[in-house]
Amino acid sequence: MSTATLAKNDMIFNRRESNVRSYCRRLDAVFDKAVGSVITDESGRQYVDFLAGCASLNYGHNDPDMKQALLDHIGRNGIAHGLDLFTTAKRRFLEDFESLILNPRGLDYRVQFTGPTGANAVEAALKLARKVTGRNNVVAFTNGFHGVTQGALAATGNRYHRMGPSTQHSGVSRLPFDGYLGADIDTAEILERMLSDPSSGLDSPAAILLETVQGEGGLNAASPSWLRQIAHLAQLHGALLIVDDIQAGCGRTGTFFSFEGIGIVPDLVTLSKSLSGFGLPMALLLIRPQHDLWRPAEHNGTFRGNTHAFVTAQAALRKFWSDDIFSRRILDKARHVGERLTAMTDLIPGSRVKGRGMMIGIDVGSGELAEAICRRCFEDGLIIETSGAYDEVVKILAPLTTPDDLLDYGLDVLESAIHAALTDRAAAAAE
Amino acid sequence: MSTATLAKNDMIFNRRESNVRSYCRRLDAVFDKAVGSVITDESGRQYVDFLAGCASLNYGHNDPDMKQALLDHIGRNGIAHGLDLFTTAKRRFLEDFESLILNPRGLDYRVQFTGPTGANAVEAALKLARKVTGRNNVVAFTNGFHGVTQGALAATGNRYHRMGPSTQHSGVSRLPFDGYLGADIDTAEILERMLSDPSSGLDSPAAILLETVQGEGGLNAASPSWLRQIAHLAQLHGALLIVDDIQAGCGRTGTFFSFEGIGIVPDLVTLSKSLSGFGLPMALLLIRPQHDLWRPAEHNGTFRGNTHAFVTAQAALRKFWSDDIFSRRILDKARHVGERLTAMTDLIPGSRVKGRGMMIGIDVGSGELAEAICRRCFEDGLIIETSGAYDEVVKILAPLTTPDDLLDYGLDVLESAIHAALTDRAAAAAE
Amino acid sequence: MSTATLAKNDMIFNRRESNVRSYCRRLDAVFDKAVGSVITDESGRQYVDFLAGCASLNYGHNDPDMKQALLDHIGRNGIAHGLDLFTTAKRRFLEDFESLILNPRGLDYRVQFTGPTGANAVEAALKLARKVTGRNNVVAFTNGFHGVTQGALAATGNRYHRMGPSTQHSGVSRLPFDGYLGADIDTAEILERMLSDPSSGLDSPAAILLETVQGEGGLNAASPSWLRQIAHLAQLHGALLIVDDIQAGCGRTGTFFSFEGIGIVPDLVTLSKSLSGFGLPMALLLIRPQHDLWRPAEHNGTFRGNTHAFVTAQAALRKFWSDDIFSRRILDKARHVGERLTAMTDLIPGSRVKGRGMMIGIDVGSGELAEAICRRCFEDGLIIETSGAYDEVVKILAPLTTPDDLLDYGLDVLESAIHAALTDRAAAAAE
Amino acid sequence: MSTATLAKNDMIFNRRESNVRSYCRRLDAVFDKAVGSVITDESGRQYVDFLAGCASLNYGHNDPDMKQALLDHIGRNGIAHGLDLFTTAKRRFLEDFESLILNPRGLDYRVQFTGPTGANAVEAALKLARKVTGRNNVVAFTNGFHGVTQGALAATGNRYHRMGPSTQHSGVSRLPFDGYLGADIDTAEILERMLSDPSSGLDSPAAILLETVQGEGGLNAASPSWLRQIAHLAQLHGALLIVDDIQAGCGRTGTFFSFEGIGIVPDLVTLSKSLSGFGLPMALLLIRPQHDLWRPAEHNGTFRGNTHAFVTAQAALRKFWSDDIFSRRILDKARHVGERLTAMTDLIPGSRVKGRGMMIGIDVGSGELAEAICRRCFEDGLIIETSGAYDEVVKILAPLTTPDDLLDYGLDVLESAIHAALTDRAAAAAE
Repeated sequence: MSTATLAKNDMIFNRRESNVRSYCRRLDAVFDKAVGSVITDESGRQYVDFLAGCASLNYGHNDPDMKQALLDHIGRNGIAHGLDLFTTAKRRFLEDFESLILNPRGLDYRVQFTGPTGANAVEAALKLARKVTGRNNVVAFTNGFHGVTQGALAATGNRYHRMGPSTQHSGVSRLPFDGYLGADIDTAEILERMLSDPSSGLDSPAAILLETVQGEGGLNAASPSWLRQIAHLAQLHGALLIVDDIQAGCGRTGTFFSFEGIGIVPDLVTLSKSLSGFGLPMALLLIRPQHDLWRPAEHNGTFRGNTHAFVTAQAALRKFWSDDIFSRRILDKARHVGERLTAMTDLIPGSRVKGRGMMIGIDVGSGELAEAICRRCFEDGLIIETSGAYDEVVKILAPLTTPDDLLDYGLDVLESAIHAALTDRAAAAAE
Repeated sequence: MSTATLAKNDMIFNRRESNVRSYCRRLDAVFDKAVGSVITDESGRQYVDFLAGCASLNYGHNDPDMKQALLDHIGRNGIAHGLDLFTTAKRRFLEDFESLILNPRGLDYRVQFTGPTGANAVEAALKLARKVTGRNNVVAFTNGFHGVTQGALAATGNRYHRMGPSTQHSGVSRLPFDGYLGADIDTAEILERMLSDPSSGLDSPAAILLETVQGEGGLNAASPSWLRQIAHLAQLHGALLIVDDIQAGCGRTGTFFSFEGIGIVPDLVTLSKSLSGFGLPMALLLIRPQHDLWRPAEHNGTFRGNTHAFVTAQAALRKFWSDDIFSRRILDKARHVGERLTAMTDLIPGSRVKGRGMMIGIDVGSGELAEAICRRCFEDGLIIETSGAYDEVVKILAPLTTPDDLLDYGLDVLESAIHAALTDRAAAAAE
Repeated sequence: MSTATLAKNDMIFNRRESNVRSYCRRLDAVFDKAVGSVITDESGRQYVDFLAGCASLNYGHNDPDMKQALLDHIGRNGIAHGLDLFTTAKRRFLEDFESLILNPRGLDYRVQFTGPTGANAVEAALKLARKVTGRNNVVAFTNGFHGVTQGALAATGNRYHRMGPSTQHSGVSRLPFDGYLGADIDTAEILERMLSDPSSGLDSPAAILLETVQGEGGLNAASPSWLRQIAHLAQLHGALLIVDDIQAGCGRTGTFFSFEGIGIVPDLVTLSKSLSGFGLPMALLLIRPQHDLWRPAEHNGTFRGNTHAFVTAQAALRKFWSDDIFSRRILDKARHVGERLTAMTDLIPGSRVKGRGMMIGIDVGSGELAEAICRRCFEDGLIIETSGAYDEVVKILAPLTTPDDLLDYGLDVLESAIHAALTDRAAAAAE
Repeated sequence: MSTATLAKNDMIFNRRESNVRSYCRRLDAVFDKAVGSVITDESGRQYVDFLAGCASLNYGHNDPDMKQALLDHIGRNGIAHGLDLFTTAKRRFLEDFESLILNPRGLDYRVQFTGPTGANAVEAALKLARKVTGRNNVVAFTNGFHGVTQGALAATGNRYHRMGPSTQHSGVSRLPFDGYLGADIDTAEILERMLSDPSSGLDSPAAILLETVQGEGGLNAASPSWLRQIAHLAQLHGALLIVDDIQAGCGRTGTFFSFEGIGIVPDLVTLSKSLSGFGLPMALLLIRPQHDLWRPAEHNGTFRGNTHAFVTAQAALRKFWSDDIFSRRILDKARHVGERLTAMTDLIPGSRVKGRGMMIGIDVGSGELAEAICRRCFEDGLIIETSGAYDEVVKILAPLTTPDDLLDYGLDVLESAIHAALTDRAAAAAE
């Protein structure tokens, strides 16, 4: 970043933007434009984007078809803000969501347009589960991330976001996620034991809430058999199974929903992030019809009808989910990325590949090393971030539409950055 | 609505949209386009919009200048989704917000871009106030409305949204709003008494949270002296004063902030709804610098950088807030609307005008009558809604840009609807 | 206290007793024996007791008839600890409680022997009210005192005792007590307004919990009409009325229950303190039969059958409540004490008599003055304490059996102490 | 029980005692007298007592020396109720508790006399741990039992007792107790993993609360190494270690405290049940001096000075804990009981002996069988009860003073009852 830019940032961002800002501290350019997997700062420098708005841009930046649909909509004075009124844009989205997503998968869900953030969809899911069951407790898992509004935050594991030991997060019981206690301990059995035991202290839950792949938690992928056990336990104990598919859904793992092909049907599903396709705020709660016990407006919100997002979301469904070609391409890319990452683990003792589909990364063993690698990448024009309890996982959330050569280019940059970071570390250790 | 349309709605909205939908139940057209204060359904029928996205469209639908700015931004592949990265669009918004809003008013605030819903800004405000003070309790008021996520919902008064007597909303003490107990009782003195008394059972609060004019609560406008007393009590007792200006801000009461000219400076201010100008999801928390104790990302959210909204928000600031012309026009319109509404109260025994600025309406004494009036209006092409504990207030939230003749046309429709509804009621009573 | 005693206290009390100790700080003798209204320290000094174990010794210390009954019981190896087993002692207590207390007053209550503390009876009352109504919120009042327990159950694992999946209740809404806002404001109307308003933010309560005379809160006596209004509101809104009669019951106000003769019948009544008559730990919850929805042991506790207390409690019922003589004597004494206190208020500008029956005192306007008066009293051989939010009320809780001459002797000491304290204060002010 | 007795019970217990009563439902005699380990009903029938007031009568009923001390105290008009005043009885108890219990064990604790129930001591411990650490969360374990209070304080107005603005605590995290997940899983490692992981969702705890042997939970005895690990984790993570020794303390496991000889020193210890020796209500919290941060009366209660209990408690200390003879006798008895129970397990397939010291029993595999055995025992004159999540453990809580021959007599009755219950079951199965 040029001195002039820095000075300018000092003038306004440092002066006026709250200390809560974060990504901009490490990725400290001023970005201006973006197309596909490439983002350009105001000085004209280009970066390959392996962050993709934390999986909010699965189809890349400014996809031309969505862009055109949005320009057309705005150009003809289409509704921008529609509360929860019926609009032609909402109808078109619903029709395509039904015919392209629900019907082919044999899924029967009602759609609730919640406030347009993932946290809001989680809040709605928890409220509805508590209303349906008349219970208060919710089972959530170690390293889960579900947002930071008070209800959602109770289910989020991260101590930093939970803001210290004196806060109060009620009505959530925390159980170990799949693999949390090592390969030898089946954590579903712990949950089973505690649910069955009337003296365990685990109150009968309204819901079991989980991500099939924990994104923020460090790309922890649950096994299909564990997910089936949990789904079975939920049913057995009268709890609703909520799959939070906000980060793992919309194709990120290779299928539209991350739970496809596993043999479970959640009672409630949250979607957001890449749902609009274009990065616009939008969120959904899918509800099995028998649980749709809401009274009108019982959960509401001003922006639950972000009509621009309906327009781009529909365009995304039509372009990418009319057949299975996109899905197969994701899996091909994922295989390739996995192979390259596996090769890179040879460079770093103790490292390993984690994740599923295009939600994949390397646990490099320490947050310091991961940060050094990401910093090197940024210097070399690659935007990439970490996740995990210690920020120890370098995660790749590249747009699913990234061309193969660009993907390899980014991976080359990553590989070089690993070399460089390790060299730096060795040099520092030698001093 | 045509039979064909109804049938089509049955096919998809009734089949797929959750029971939680609400406005669309009463305003049951399928809307397609909108310009200024006029909205058009898919059959081509036009409606005057006195709801304006619940005050999210203070500048009307598809304002041509904001529209052009947004088309330009999209056309040149400007960033759509930017997390909390530095972007040129965010910088431009911050610069104009500082020079056009903060500086002229002598206000020194840091800006936090929260998740793009009002509830999220409230959640951030409550968390920050609790962090800053190390206290848990929050004072909120009767008939307050602050959103429906768990933390915000605890502060919201509406029993329907609170979802019944068995739910758990912790950490909020409820006090009577200004005027709640009649003209003879100064409710600020009740708060003062309870705050001062170490045995009152009111725990020392982290914050006092209020709307200067309660929108959803029934257009209850607090008096300047009451607001000053509350601000004084907050300061005296070490609590942060949070003004929730989500509905009353952005010009709705005649000034950009609803608390201007009253002699109070809140510690925290929430803004949303009309902030983007165009109806796009966006929300802010304004923080006095000494309270900006956030650590990076302590409160986060995927869509806290809705860049399209920054673009239109900046255009709105430039167009409407570069001088005081717009503000004076609002007050002129408000005076006129107030006079016409006052005249209408003669028609309805016991009715009265409530509110402040262009956030004004008639308390007609019963939810049934108010609903009948609104239904009549809709039949005659006017979109208008109710608020208040019993939905007994017909509220006018027309775009602040509504031309005078269109405003009068809408008020004519309302007046006719009142006549008709009263005639209907008299006829029903005579049977 | 002699130097030797002080030294001895230093050795053991200061060394081993927690800082939480309190009364002993001001009343710093080592007490040894007591009879009636006179208590003797280890040096043989005698004190008149106007504290009476905070109204736990309404019949004085070591009443000879209760004492004999207890000695007989112990002497013949009567059960001491009986869990909740049937015992002959419990049966005798229940029979006399029914025939001497309930039947003559036309009251039909089930008796729950809770853990032997007042707080435990309140805990049971709140749990039962929440279970009966399925609601969470409880209305309590400014300056109310109901004990200091708050959550052992949270740590207990047993689901049966945790009472099902919807619990984890904590909600209390605080409303102003009768007179709290001055003589001109009817605080029952505030409660009525908030209960009726669906948007007030006051969730429909499981119970309204009150003391008819707030002891710790400063001897605030509710008026009969206010109590009837509250009872009516409870019934109207489906809430249980709980009268916490722990301090005001057992004759303290002149009748066995403090609510007699007022025209209200609480749904639940808590009793403790003077219930055993002898100062032994014992507590009861009275339950209208239709609300006795407990399952066996749902609320339990090791010492809920303190059989020694049953023995003395029965003796107290027989001795004092077989007819109305005792009750009339209390009212005579109360009248006399009231007259003398009223005379004393002439000494202290701004002071006033507060309370009802033999639960009466002088609000002297400041905690400092009240403390100075009590300290002087103690020096002169009178044990007397303060209450109120600022400890500003010198309260008389003399045994109801105190002979008239001893009562006057104590009042003489108090009057002298007031003179002395005022003289000291004037002297200090003159310096 | 005679028909006359039954009829009489119907008359008063059924009519007036709440449905919450429990033990009396199974043990349906009306008890009158008791000496040592023998209890006599009103018809003169004698029962051997293997329940001992749920371990509240470790020294048997009406021990002659305590009885005489209490008769002397009452006879000479010793104080019965002393609030928290200094009394000669309290001093004597403290002196002997220091010299006979604390000093010989090298323990340095402050003593808090809480309200005289175990739950109240636990309440005080949790409040103090939260105050000391400024944290909210508490780690408790599966099958733990710590009392059933949950919120009287919420209704109390006094800010001093409410302990400041940051309270309203409710958080408990539930972890598996030692052995809960089978012999192969070290549950201390699960706790370690979750405490160390900043993203586990386990908030840093104020305290870790445990029983060394879970009484109500089914006689689950933690291993010394597990207890040491937990103590180490508490220290490492800044949490207070609270040992709830209410049931396991006072000699039940063979030593005065259940944690002696293991190598841990808890920060806080709760004692109650057999503390008074005589079955009188009494409870203590032991506090390491550096944690004694209470302000005067911050936790209070009317009966925290049950002076009768101090008298008998002192007599118990002197009689049983002046040397180690009693302790060795308990261990001898425990060995013998253990051998006899082990022999009995041969009768019941799948059964096993559980517990430690004289807190021992047989897990017979089902609540039905355990209940049948206990019912048979009662018919044959032995009072014995079950514990465990399914009431599947027949537990022996005989007085520690039970003579050997009476102990064997009771065990003979138990053995016969097992035979009979199994025969009944076989007969029922054959039908």
